[in-house]
Amino acid sequence: MAETLIQIGVVGCADIARKVSRAITLAPNAALCAVASRSHDKAAAFAAANGFPLSAKVYGSYESLLEDPDVDAVYMPLPTSLHLHWAVLAAQNKKHLLLEKPVALDVAQFDRILEACESSGVQFMDNTMWVHNPRTAAMAHFLNDAQRFGNLKSVRTCFTFAADPDYLNTNIRVKSDLDALGSLGDAGWYCIRAILLAANYELPKTVVASYEPVLNKDGVILDCGASLYWEDGKVATFHCSFLANLTMDITAIGTRGTLHVHDFVIPYHEKEASFLAGTETGFNDLVTGWDKQPSKHTVTTDLPQEALLIREFARLVAEIKFKNSKPDKKWPTITRKTQLVLDAVKASIQRGFEPVQIQE
Amino acid sequence: MAETLIQIGVVGCADIARKVSRAITLAPNAALCAVASRSHDKAAAFAAANGFPLSAKVYGSYESLLEDPDVDAVYMPLPTSLHLHWAVLAAQNKKHLLLEKPVALDVAQFDRILEACESSGVQFMDNTMWVHNPRTAAMAHFLNDAQRFGNLKSVRTCFTFAADPDYLNTNIRVKSDLDALGSLGDAGWYCIRAILLAANYELPKTVVASYEPVLNKDGVILDCGASLYWEDGKVATFHCSFLANLTMDITAIGTRGTLHVHDFVIPYHEKEASFLAGTETGFNDLVTGWDKQPSKHTVTTDLPQEALLIREFARLVAEIKFKNSKPDKKWPTITRKTQLVLDAVKASIQRGFEPVQIQE
Repeated sequence: MAETLIQIGVVGCADIARKVSRAITLAPNAALCAVASRSHDKAAAFAAANGFPLSAKVYGSYESLLEDPDVDAVYMPLPTSLHLHWAVLAAQNKKHLLLEKPVALDVAQFDRILEACESSGVQFMDNTMWVHNPRTAAMAHFLNDAQRFGNLKSVRTCFTFAADPDYLNTNIRVKSDLDALGSLGDAGWYCIRAILLAANYELPKTVVASYEPVLNKDGVILDCGASLYWEDGKVATFHCSFLANLTMDITAIGTRGTLHVHDFVIPYHEKEASFLAGTETGFNDLVTGWDKQPSKHTVTTDLPQEALLIREFARLVAEIKFKNSKPDKKWPTITRKTQLVLDAVKASIQRGFEPVQIQE
Repeated sequence: MAETLIQIGVVGCADIARKVSRAITLAPNAALCAVASRSHDKAAAFAAANGFPLSAKVYGSYESLLEDPDVDAVYMPLPTSLHLHWAVLAAQNKKHLLLEKPVALDVAQFDRILEACESSGVQFMDNTMWVHNPRTAAMAHFLNDAQRFGNLKSVRTCFTFAADPDYLNTNIRVKSDLDALGSLGDAGWYCIRAILLAANYELPKTVVASYEPVLNKDGVILDCGASLYWEDGKVATFHCSFLANLTMDITAIGTRGTLHVHDFVIPYHEKEASFLAGTETGFNDLVTGWDKQPSKHTVTTDLPQEALLIREFARLVAEIKFKNSKPDKKWPTITRKTQLVLDAVKASIQRGFEPVQIQE
């Protein structure tokens, strides 16, 4: 059995790698086999603190891990500006690649990563966890139901959190040489992904950034938003910020139904998550109340969403490793669309909030 | 006791007048005393169907009701394009005025109505019911709490409903000669009011309409949205539509707190209404769930919100009638701000989505 487990190495000991290491341990088809940091001591301490098996290898450089033939796949939580170099090198070393989001500084960089993965025949997946929660599948099922939801008319999302002064001074997500996309790349990534989910992954035609984004002294976005427009009249807006209380909403409105969710990125609870769905909601005759209101749908899961992501990633890797399948294209295609929209928002901000057309 | 009741006449038998007539009956300090329609038969049928007392007078013209010295105040649910004429005439006849929203086609018209009210010393109030629900006071209390909510950073609202084909062909709200402001004047009015409530009635500096509003063949807005910007960086967006499933949300995010509500205009239930409020909501250490999530606050009320509105209106009228007080300025000031923002959204649409500055 152990031989069929996909052996995953962790490249970088960022905070988020703690959660993902636990997820790899929880996933039934994957195992932690190695960890690398630029410092051997830091890697060893990380392995000890995060449930790595005694057999796991500890590396003091990323290269060494990437050259380890026992490593099937890597999880890479490095700062965005380092992705191009290390993700391409991982792919060239035939390592299947689970890459932290935002996947690249722009889609041109991401395409080079994807090309490297395709050349080597390795699986690419980004580490957007919430889409692997079974609640997300239930929401997507509702959103694509012509009877219960109809056609999407508008979707509004937000993801904000109040970073403390230390974060705003020192975190990699506010550094122009590390995660130069700031809150757009971090929180905005999720908002854009939620909008694409609601639009059944149809790209918008036009993106216009909201006025008054907040940038730090190095030009990194701390707070921004945008409106997205489709040919058929669908409209989406989102707002992402490091400067406001923790909030993460999706409100999607169709011709026949409405969906509300308040914890879409990280569900309140690990083992169950809910959303509100209403179909042909309406008032009573005198309009003094609703005779049909949205109802709560709760979806349970044995594994947390990040372990479900690992399970899906390892499943695809196993298909390639053991059954000579081709890498799956669904997930990288969605990743690329997310990055395309993100690029358009950034371009609109840079061009003084001009509308930016999206071209695939 | 009956002599201290404020005697209210209903000018026009629109559908909404049914609900308001019931509200006047329910309010402890008001009474239905008259109804007018352009047709005497229609007025009589309305009075019979809506619980008017046998003593109530039935008029076949609006003028006759306005000239009745026993009428203290009028409720006027006429189409918007008729407001200027009839509201001014009501004020000139010394009738206190409860006017259906949108109050006028633009703020210039509204100012003429207000001037007439001020000249005659009569009370003006618009018929925005939800702000009189005690839940709204509880929400405002939360939004203005520096500890629980902090400073407002963003607020998003929507009010959409799916009008049926008959409505979209025949309702006064889609007729350019009757309610020319369409969904902006109807549903958008509430969104703008909610945004102003969240901003503690500070007017935004700049308003930009969203691309791709939907207009009918006569140029009446069926679906639109806008973004609003304040000097201090606050941002608001709203979306209003006759073309999407019934939905009415407020999400307000402050530096320290978040408010969510899904039934702000018409609460699900008449006697109780809820909202979600969270302060310094946050994740657990491993970011696998929330250690502090928003909690539900429920506010009960003996009287439905529309009866509370009538009670407030009649209270102000009684202050003037029995105690020689001056008319209250709070409500008309809020009405005017709502209309100013509405005008700016319309102007931005007309100017091809250019930013429009708001001047008081």
